[in-house]
Amino acid sequence: MVMELPTVDDIRQAAGRLAGEIVNTPVLESALLNQALGCRVLVKAECLQRTGSFKFRGACNRISRLNPEARACGVVAYSSGNHAQGVAAASQALGVSATIVIPRDAPALKIDHTRRYGARVILYDRHTESREAIGEEIARTEGRILVPPYDDADVIAGQGTVALELAEALAQLGVRPDALFCPCGGGGLVAGVSLVFQQLMPTLAVFAAEPQHFDDTRRSLLAGERLANDPAQRSICDSIVTPTPGELTFAINRRTLAGAVAVSEASVCEAMRLAFAHLKLVVEPGGVAGLAALLDGQTDCQGKTVVVVLSGGNVDLETFIRLTGGSRSVL
Amino acid sequence: MVMELPTVDDIRQAAGRLAGEIVNTPVLESALLNQALGCRVLVKAECLQRTGSFKFRGACNRISRLNPEARACGVVAYSSGNHAQGVAAASQALGVSATIVIPRDAPALKIDHTRRYGARVILYDRHTESREAIGEEIARTEGRILVPPYDDADVIAGQGTVALELAEALAQLGVRPDALFCPCGGGGLVAGVSLVFQQLMPTLAVFAAEPQHFDDTRRSLLAGERLANDPAQRSICDSIVTPTPGELTFAINRRTLAGAVAVSEASVCEAMRLAFAHLKLVVEPGGVAGLAALLDGQTDCQGKTVVVVLSGGNVDLETFIRLTGGSRSVL
Repeated sequence: MVMELPTVDDIRQAAGRLAGEIVNTPVLESALLNQALGCRVLVKAECLQRTGSFKFRGACNRISRLNPEARACGVVAYSSGNHAQGVAAASQALGVSATIVIPRDAPALKIDHTRRYGARVILYDRHTESREAIGEEIARTEGRILVPPYDDADVIAGQGTVALELAEALAQLGVRPDALFCPCGGGGLVAGVSLVFQQLMPTLAVFAAEPQHFDDTRRSLLAGERLANDPAQRSICDSIVTPTPGELTFAINRRTLAGAVAVSEASVCEAMRLAFAHLKLVVEPGGVAGLAALLDGQTDCQGKTVVVVLSGGNVDLETFIRLTGGSRSVL
Repeated sequence: MVMELPTVDDIRQAAGRLAGEIVNTPVLESALLNQALGCRVLVKAECLQRTGSFKFRGACNRISRLNPEARACGVVAYSSGNHAQGVAAASQALGVSATIVIPRDAPALKIDHTRRYGARVILYDRHTESREAIGEEIARTEGRILVPPYDDADVIAGQGTVALELAEALAQLGVRPDALFCPCGGGGLVAGVSLVFQQLMPTLAVFAAEPQHFDDTRRSLLAGERLANDPAQRSICDSIVTPTPGELTFAINRRTLAGAVAVSEASVCEAMRLAFAHLKLVVEPGGVAGLAALLDGQTDCQGKTVVVVLSGGNVDLETFIRLTGGSRSVL
């Protein structure tokens, strides 16, 4: 089977399709954050995207490519929450009916918001049921088109538009960064982003940032084949815990990434506090993994210029308070 | 005495001076926030400005207009915290020495950050000492130029650049809003903003949003003269508690504002929760007063299009948690 991988041209076409629908999210910098980390950090604040994460981009690109018959049947998606909201809001914006399959233990905010975007929500048990099976059953019986969370050329192309905006902002700032850190679950965002930069800025080292125990992309890159995570593990980074790298995403990432790093939960919590204090941004645990990578000291970024994608901000206030504590001081 | 009031031309010149130094902060919208409030709300996320508030604009404009002799002597400023950081960071950016007089009970984060921007900090007691007297004493003995927090034509002109960016963003979106709500302490920001919109969008009703018990501008507008607040009162909105409207700012605001509203502390806390949940923004109590005004129901914005300036995000995590609680659900 020949996989149809997206190209930078596909990403440019996606950007044209999404113009006017998405927020060109700002690139922010804090002198005090730079001081604290010992490097210059430029942040792509994608948590300010519609629905609070980058997922709106891929969903909107995929759904806007459906033909009228498919649109009339509607779509179905399975997601831990951010893709759910992205598909729900994109469907609402494009006048398409959406059914979303969400794990019962997803953050309440994500489930609630998905419903408020007008989608039908079906809950399942993350540990005993297969979301793929449920999603495919609904697709078959209701004739709905499945919008995959990451392993889809149109979805990857949509996520890649983050990098086109970033490249333009960096050019305006006159900055040529040394490295980029991007959260990685299934790998759709970092695949799209790294594809763009491989062409536009080939010297930029793009790294995937994954939670500890869910560093399937890191281990797969080292092994040269797709490896799975231990299904018994748990993580606070609910938006980027996936069983294995995607087929398409790994086919891209193995050619484009400089590497991947696994970040500790302590670094994730500290990165959330830093984003709060210095950037005034609410970033969810999975969304802050790229910034956490700078705290873990696994890569030497001292004195360098680094781009960090903050990919989402969908975290309940209660969870945010529990994770950031409020007792520990920031750097 | 003839007061020299700033003009829209001065604000345009300030924008030229500040280009490359300031962030053109994004205008954001959330479908779920609109649903919750029953109106279309466009947010100017000025909490994402350098130093976490709009104050950097006015300080940078004022200091960049100093002649070389004055620059060599340095500047002094008194502030509850945001102007302190603005002056400190602007001074650092322009290579000017800064001494800042800050109340001892200001948020620890603001004092700490002012120091990290390289300024000398002098603490005083907000309730027994006069910050004006301390600031003027330092100006006299050290030959430093005083950078006033709001009652200064260059400072007001700098703050007004927020509105030039807003007007451009609104034109790009093709939106003509009905009303604008802007936090108001001494009145510098709302004076600059309302000056611009009076010329560029005369049908837009611009309102100052003040904390309860510190509604000096609201009462002064009604009385037609500058009235003082009760000095015994306290407020969680530390960044916008001032004794009276400024002389220059009131001279502008009485001609430009549609009115002013006093917001309850409960609405301020709820607005902070809404900004967290739907906009992924950290907004401090004083910075969120304009959004709080939409919750108090004192103005009927149902079905209308409203602009809200979120003017700052400098709040300690501990204070944020205390005020937002985490127990109450958002709308």
